[in-house]
Amino acid sequence: MTATRAIGVDWGTTTFRAFRFDEHGTVLEARRAEAGIRAIDDGDFEGALEHLVGDWLDAADASPVVLSGMIGSRQGWIEAPYLPCPADLGDLADALVPLDLGRGRRVHVAPGLSCHDAGGVPDVMRGEEVQILGTIDCLGAGSATLCLPGTHSKWAWVEGRRVTGFATYMTGEVFDVLRRHTILGTTIEHAAWDQAAFGDGVARAAEAEGGGLLHQLFGVRASGLFGELSPETSGAFLSGLIIGHELRAALAGHRGGPVHLIGEEGLVRLYRAALAHFKIEAIEGPSDAAARGLGVLTAYLRERSIA
Amino acid sequence: MTATRAIGVDWGTTTFRAFRFDEHGTVLEARRAEAGIRAIDDGDFEGALEHLVGDWLDAADASPVVLSGMIGSRQGWIEAPYLPCPADLGDLADALVPLDLGRGRRVHVAPGLSCHDAGGVPDVMRGEEVQILGTIDCLGAGSATLCLPGTHSKWAWVEGRRVTGFATYMTGEVFDVLRRHTILGTTIEHAAWDQAAFGDGVARAAEAEGGGLLHQLFGVRASGLFGELSPETSGAFLSGLIIGHELRAALAGHRGGPVHLIGEEGLVRLYRAALAHFKIEAIEGPSDAAARGLGVLTAYLRERSIA
Repeated sequence: MTATRAIGVDWGTTTFRAFRFDEHGTVLEARRAEAGIRAIDDGDFEGALEHLVGDWLDAADASPVVLSGMIGSRQGWIEAPYLPCPADLGDLADALVPLDLGRGRRVHVAPGLSCHDAGGVPDVMRGEEVQILGTIDCLGAGSATLCLPGTHSKWAWVEGRRVTGFATYMTGEVFDVLRRHTILGTTIEHAAWDQAAFGDGVARAAEAEGGGLLHQLFGVRASGLFGELSPETSGAFLSGLIIGHELRAALAGHRGGPVHLIGEEGLVRLYRAALAHFKIEAIEGPSDAAARGLGVLTAYLRERSIA
Repeated sequence: MTATRAIGVDWGTTTFRAFRFDEHGTVLEARRAEAGIRAIDDGDFEGALEHLVGDWLDAADASPVVLSGMIGSRQGWIEAPYLPCPADLGDLADALVPLDLGRGRRVHVAPGLSCHDAGGVPDVMRGEEVQILGTIDCLGAGSATLCLPGTHSKWAWVEGRRVTGFATYMTGEVFDVLRRHTILGTTIEHAAWDQAAFGDGVARAAEAEGGGLLHQLFGVRASGLFGELSPETSGAFLSGLIIGHELRAALAGHRGGPVHLIGEEGLVRLYRAALAHFKIEAIEGPSDAAARGLGVLTAYLRERSIA
């Protein structure tokens, strides 16, 4: 097997994904386990790491080892303080928190990013910054708008390989609790999907005088009473409505150009369709942005001989 | 006891509230039971009515008997179709659905109201229309903006004793599921309340470039991470944020003047404080708008000899 020259781990709340890299940051091998930080007993993260990738760690010159994601949160192994934006690859590398383990080993825990929005309210990300690094590596210099859809969707703005700011939207989680725990759920057939209804929901969100999200949510209920939405179409309409509100807010100050979508295939497809309603081109980001970002970060550290 | 000349029942999902009236629609006596339509076994609404107010029904000339609320829904006794706005007292009286019971008795089931918003999306209310009638009876002719805060807040617009339109906001229910079922709930001390934080939440919602509700919700989380909100202040801030978004949307086309608040005392106090942030005067509606509305409706029917 090709010699491991670095290791990166995307260690989230529910999932552990590890990659071993060559000296250029190219992935040689990947592993995945349902060993997110919530699943680790007694805080024995060192034991878990040893168990999952001990053979990689044993290899000569297998450094640096970079861990990103919730492992660096207050609930994780060690808290790596959020790095304020604007920030680039070098800033992120400088903000890594080294942690010395037994047997002369050392790992580096990635910080998340923080910023403040126009109203002065803080925002944070942890883990996504590595996906953004991977995407910037694809895009090269220049300005770009990135969107990472999900439970907490992240929009990030990039200028010349530097993250200038970002904003989080609780889109996925809000959709989930609305359809599971409110009156809207009683008339949704969860297994059904209707793409046209999804588009109608996005269009509804985009209306200038739509009355706001809280009103439009009740409209899903009332439309059901009048037979304008069915149990088979209500879920997709609701999804479109909520994603549409995210897009409407995130695109309010959009400076033009495409939006780079980074994430799971199904979500990327949905967001692409929603963006089309706003006449915005969508470009798919790298298929494994986290792996690519960890590769970029470890290669950078090797160049600077930080291990 | 003064002779019963009419009976009104506000029969909702969870609660049954009955009033007996004199010929002018003045309340002579009130009863309340946790006998909402969900609590009625086998759809025996007639048995429940007999059980709860049979002695009133037995009185000579105790008619008309009007039932309002969810009792007239698809899940209730008989479906009374929604009456489209604009609508006034006479229209509501004409749209009552009579139901003949045993022993020569008859009840009238009130319709709800429906309307369409600027985007053509339907909206409905059922039960609140009687509270609105009661409020109009206090206000007299003229234009007025009414707000009935709650699980599904209703805003209604009145012109010359006629309801011209209304809009529903899922404010209370959304607040409830967010604090109970999302990540926001993990850092909220539910028993705590902080009025200043409530005001901050309203102010945040009112910001022109605030980034939308889905973004601001995550801001509650991030502000907690940075110590700008505490478990003791987060719940009130979240409440202010969501109520603020309702107000912002509902007041978007506000034609000036005060807002008449009808509802439970604590909620009315909160909405009054929130309206002050928008520089809108709040006026408290009648203390029991439903009873007053049922009184107005039954007195109108007596005048027209509709029983």
